[in-house]
Amino acid sequence: MKPSSGKALKSAHDILGHVEHPLDPFFKPKNVAMLGATENPGSVGRTTLWNLISSPFGGAVFPVNPKRESVLGIKAYKSVKEIPAEIDLAVIATNSKLIPGLVQECGEVGCKAAVVISAGFKEAGPEGIELERQLLANAKAANMRIIGPNCLGIMVPPSGINATFAAGMARTGNVGFLSQSGALCTAVLDWSLAENVGFSAFMSLGSMADVGWGDLIYYLGNDPKTRAILIYMESVGDARSFLSAAREVAYTKPIIVIKAGRTAAGSQAAASHTGSMTGSDDVLDIAFRRSGVLRVTNIADLFYMAEVLAKQPRPKGPRLTILTNAGGPGVLAADSLLLGDGELAEISEQTIAELDKFLPATWSRRNPIDIIGDAGPERYAQTLEVVSKDANTDGMLVILTPQAMTDSTQTAQLLKPLAKQGERPVLASWMGGVDVDAGVHILNQAGIPTFPYPDTAARMFNYMWRYASNLRALYETPAYAQSDADADISKVKVILDRVRAEGRTILTEFESKDVLAAYGVPTLPSRIATTEDQAVDAAESMGYPVVLKLHSLTITHKTDVGGVQLNLKTADAVRAAFQSIRDSVAAKAGLEHFNGVNVQPFAKLDGYEVILGSSIDPQFGPVLLFGMGGQLVEVFKDRSLGLPPLNSTLARRMMERTKIYKALKGVRGRKPVDLAGLEQLLVRFSRLVVEQPWIKEIDINPLLASPERLLALDARIVLHDPATRPPPNR
Amino acid sequence: MKPSSGKALKSAHDILGHVEHPLDPFFKPKNVAMLGATENPGSVGRTTLWNLISSPFGGAVFPVNPKRESVLGIKAYKSVKEIPAEIDLAVIATNSKLIPGLVQECGEVGCKAAVVISAGFKEAGPEGIELERQLLANAKAANMRIIGPNCLGIMVPPSGINATFAAGMARTGNVGFLSQSGALCTAVLDWSLAENVGFSAFMSLGSMADVGWGDLIYYLGNDPKTRAILIYMESVGDARSFLSAAREVAYTKPIIVIKAGRTAAGSQAAASHTGSMTGSDDVLDIAFRRSGVLRVTNIADLFYMAEVLAKQPRPKGPRLTILTNAGGPGVLAADSLLLGDGELAEISEQTIAELDKFLPATWSRRNPIDIIGDAGPERYAQTLEVVSKDANTDGMLVILTPQAMTDSTQTAQLLKPLAKQGERPVLASWMGGVDVDAGVHILNQAGIPTFPYPDTAARMFNYMWRYASNLRALYETPAYAQSDADADISKVKVILDRVRAEGRTILTEFESKDVLAAYGVPTLPSRIATTEDQAVDAAESMGYPVVLKLHSLTITHKTDVGGVQLNLKTADAVRAAFQSIRDSVAAKAGLEHFNGVNVQPFAKLDGYEVILGSSIDPQFGPVLLFGMGGQLVEVFKDRSLGLPPLNSTLARRMMERTKIYKALKGVRGRKPVDLAGLEQLLVRFSRLVVEQPWIKEIDINPLLASPERLLALDARIVLHDPATRPPPNR
Repeated sequence: MKPSSGKALKSAHDILGHVEHPLDPFFKPKNVAMLGATENPGSVGRTTLWNLISSPFGGAVFPVNPKRESVLGIKAYKSVKEIPAEIDLAVIATNSKLIPGLVQECGEVGCKAAVVISAGFKEAGPEGIELERQLLANAKAANMRIIGPNCLGIMVPPSGINATFAAGMARTGNVGFLSQSGALCTAVLDWSLAENVGFSAFMSLGSMADVGWGDLIYYLGNDPKTRAILIYMESVGDARSFLSAAREVAYTKPIIVIKAGRTAAGSQAAASHTGSMTGSDDVLDIAFRRSGVLRVTNIADLFYMAEVLAKQPRPKGPRLTILTNAGGPGVLAADSLLLGDGELAEISEQTIAELDKFLPATWSRRNPIDIIGDAGPERYAQTLEVVSKDANTDGMLVILTPQAMTDSTQTAQLLKPLAKQGERPVLASWMGGVDVDAGVHILNQAGIPTFPYPDTAARMFNYMWRYASNLRALYETPAYAQSDADADISKVKVILDRVRAEGRTILTEFESKDVLAAYGVPTLPSRIATTEDQAVDAAESMGYPVVLKLHSLTITHKTDVGGVQLNLKTADAVRAAFQSIRDSVAAKAGLEHFNGVNVQPFAKLDGYEVILGSSIDPQFGPVLLFGMGGQLVEVFKDRSLGLPPLNSTLARRMMERTKIYKALKGVRGRKPVDLAGLEQLLVRFSRLVVEQPWIKEIDINPLLASPERLLALDARIVLHDPATRPPPNR
Repeated sequence: MKPSSGKALKSAHDILGHVEHPLDPFFKPKNVAMLGATENPGSVGRTTLWNLISSPFGGAVFPVNPKRESVLGIKAYKSVKEIPAEIDLAVIATNSKLIPGLVQECGEVGCKAAVVISAGFKEAGPEGIELERQLLANAKAANMRIIGPNCLGIMVPPSGINATFAAGMARTGNVGFLSQSGALCTAVLDWSLAENVGFSAFMSLGSMADVGWGDLIYYLGNDPKTRAILIYMESVGDARSFLSAAREVAYTKPIIVIKAGRTAAGSQAAASHTGSMTGSDDVLDIAFRRSGVLRVTNIADLFYMAEVLAKQPRPKGPRLTILTNAGGPGVLAADSLLLGDGELAEISEQTIAELDKFLPATWSRRNPIDIIGDAGPERYAQTLEVVSKDANTDGMLVILTPQAMTDSTQTAQLLKPLAKQGERPVLASWMGGVDVDAGVHILNQAGIPTFPYPDTAARMFNYMWRYASNLRALYETPAYAQSDADADISKVKVILDRVRAEGRTILTEFESKDVLAAYGVPTLPSRIATTEDQAVDAAESMGYPVVLKLHSLTITHKTDVGGVQLNLKTADAVRAAFQSIRDSVAAKAGLEHFNGVNVQPFAKLDGYEVILGSSIDPQFGPVLLFGMGGQLVEVFKDRSLGLPPLNSTLARRMMERTKIYKALKGVRGRKPVDLAGLEQLLVRFSRLVVEQPWIKEIDINPLLASPERLLALDARIVLHDPATRPPPNR
């Protein structure tokens, strides 16, 4: 239950509300000092002071300005030390060079929180970085928490606090909005005033030098006035703090994120397929999913979803029933639903029979349910009531188009009592403009989110069920992977220790397969031979034909140096191949790179080639990858990501998110591959990744999957370079 | 220039405007007869009459009602024959059984056009179908054109005609709106009144028994008051008529379509991979693209695009420059741009140098161009002016967020003169609500389309360049494929005639490859052998190892009956294989299905497996398919469609729209395949499809593509069954 940002927090907030939470002064300060208060027209200091005094929060505001006796008619003080009252929140908008000193003074008078609006810190080069370091050191010494620097400030409408330089105060409501962009804050504020959206908190976090996502998600999670948390994110910052807070709070309140930079993911230098296909934005997606956070792709959806999730229950599944008085709009909604992987509910025979009792004979008798253009209010209400009891339905969308006999207002009235349908959400689309305004208002008041276009409504339903499904998945996430008897951890440790002792970071294919085998990943039998005779011995013990592959501690791209000889059927052929590989390596790279050969049976194997890998994300640590393998792996990029550890459910879900899964399940009459075995293989692989923190990257490509067997045909393991990056202590 | 709907049209409209166009009476009637005019409150007949008389169109309205002397205070007539004036438009809202007779009477008095609002025709079962047949026959005999039946009616705001039963009259403007859904019409009308959108025509087409897409697209194409044509389509109807009209008109006016049923595409019974992967909605997409029509996916975009294309020029390419006073919104716009395959323009060194002269030192120096939060109106205007001259830029998006120093209204004022930037479109996003309203109004008036969210604006830019690129492609479309000396048309005809004479529709693999070879598609050498000796002869002449495959006139799934034997190295092996295939076929299917074997060289061939195919779309005729081939073809569905004939540009574009193309071009240091050869192969293949109308389906899968060669490894051709479906006369 602790925020994990590494700051010294009182553990007090666990004792619900009895003792003050360290962030309380931001949300309900007793008295506020405004450092940098001025009268210069248009200045941040003036606007912020004005906002503080125009919005009563039950305490007093003390302007601090060493050069003035009063500001905006309020007595000013030369320093916080002169203020004749206990200050618990400081708002600072002044020259950044002065701020570390000012924070220290605040600490000295017992102030516990500061909003630093000013810029000029880490974004401003080396000098600013040093200033920020001082600022944080002084704050820490005084046990103070800081929001900012470089932000618009904070508003808490329920308590009346407006410590921003925005041009207005947000309305009171139930949405907690956190934004990393001050500019976006002002735009959203402006928009919210026009659209009547209210907030329990409206916070611009700036560069998040101290207070970050994790702190505020926990706080708003415990705040009874907050029903949904909306986040505009530019960078995830301390990923662990964000995720652990989100994972906990998401059970009770929706957390909806829009994160910019979806496509601008920085390119990673990657030695493996896995590395090059694991974009950091994709990892973020999977992390959001694993922590129950809903990610939306455009700004409008952020607010739509806050409304929808606040007003309506979460659907149990993806099956929507569409009720309409016109065919076309119903089909448009169905299109949008299906394109977003939602499903059209198959209405039951019983429902059809009940509807037959009162609907005109020409009704569609399937979903979308077209109740015909002359549908009046009663027909709408009756139909919705029947449909909402259909066990095949997870949610309902009611579409109304104004036609000759339509009464959009009265229809809305009759739907009001049906707004809460137990566990099935109801959405509406009242199409048209002025004619339907009154009806839209009634529906919105009744708690039925209403959209001008039915396709938008269907899209929102897709967000809803996906969100609900992520939440359910939260319960399935294993806390830790249990290692089992299969995994020979100590053997792996011996191998890795030896490789590291030799100063290497890349394992040979032989070593890589040994590591995998220790975790129960089947590999082809393989023997290293350093002489022709050994190679022939190995070949004869495993039976012809065999393959010889270069064994090298340094070279990993074996084909490039003529290091692979296939389909060797006799001892002579093996000898010739041994020589050929040695000579070729000597000529192309130098004999020192030849450490012998790897002898393996040559089997023509049938099956699908998949890839299984892991790599390190700079923010989230190890990430797993599964997908179509083989030589076209980077062309098709048919892969899904996962975060270790996996249990069998999560492993199966990872597989299901790929296209190749369709083939693995058996397609066009072919037998399915050993899916249960593959699932377990993924689980064991995820353990390997968790339990062996020296491992940086693994590529198993291809991993051959057939009905009879699973077999790692090639593998490659790379370790962390201890010189540049010690592995995290997991 | 002729509408191709097959109706008897006066050719007069070619002589521009001198003689009346047959559709003129719908758009500017002299006098209107209203058949079925009543006073029943809420009735269609009353509302329509009321609409006709409330909106002056310069002529007189004559109610027709056999039972009344007057309706709504206007003298009524027992029949059109009694009307003492020349009637050129009849509006009919009465019992459908009477309508064929009424149309006949209209024809007798010289009326040339009728809007049939009433339902009760083909949608109402056999009786209705017969009524519709009579209606059309009577109309044709009198040279009358019909809109409807089963529609809301038509409005032509510029001439004042409102022959609908809608609850209002559309505003006058430049958008021609055609809708197959009357319900959607009323919703759009309602919305347009709220949003101030005006129309040059607003037509509900109902079941399009006579006047259809083609007619109206041509008409609106020639109508100087119409600047954009918006279509809500439920079915394409007469596809050829639609496409030829669209292809012609799209050069001068945007045609924007929303088509419902994107995902509900009916499943086709398909014998081939090509058939099963060619959904009719995908074909529609490709047909839209080939005719310069822009398809949008949601209703809001239909109107956004009408506005954008009316106000701004079409971009030359996909490169957008984003100008913003805040980082986050710029990144959101960039995300949306890149996700829709648009590109961020790389601003030139020269532009950077010019911007350096006046922008603050901290500006981003790259795209998105962040001109910093304190940007005033002049900075916006100066930056836009410089950027709009950058040759690397195809369009500009200006984003404004309200910040401390922002003046959204004055900024809009200063951008006004920059609204028209030659060939580079300018879009804007003024974020926020009330604060920016004045600025938004100024921009909209100045012709700069302005959106509340920057991501929406970027999405519109993606539509714009894609639309422009489709239009450019129109110029590249060859009218007809020229056959060249390579193609041995007569040889193919002989093969197909023989197969048909034998009563078969499926060609053997041998015949299929012969057909392909005649059009220059390389195939493996292959010989049919009906005895063991012939098989050995064939093998020895082509050299060992060889493959034997069943040759059968009836069985196409050879593997299922043990019909394939690989890697045969000796004469004995060939004999044994021959026997094995014969015995296996005899046991599993019967000896009568064994017509010998096909002998082919067994070569281990390296290269990518692609698929090339054709099938028949019920609406658009032959459709080509290209994509990743092999056994996973239906799992990955990496394919693109095309309409024959192709030239080399179109063939290349088809290839480019697949993922496998990335591999074909050479990936990870591998050599590219023979792309020029592949392109020509596609062109020749498209000729085959065009020139041999008996062909129904072709699958070449796999077609092996490598740097050295292209080779059809397996092929299958299916002919039309003359009993059930004679081939179209192409």
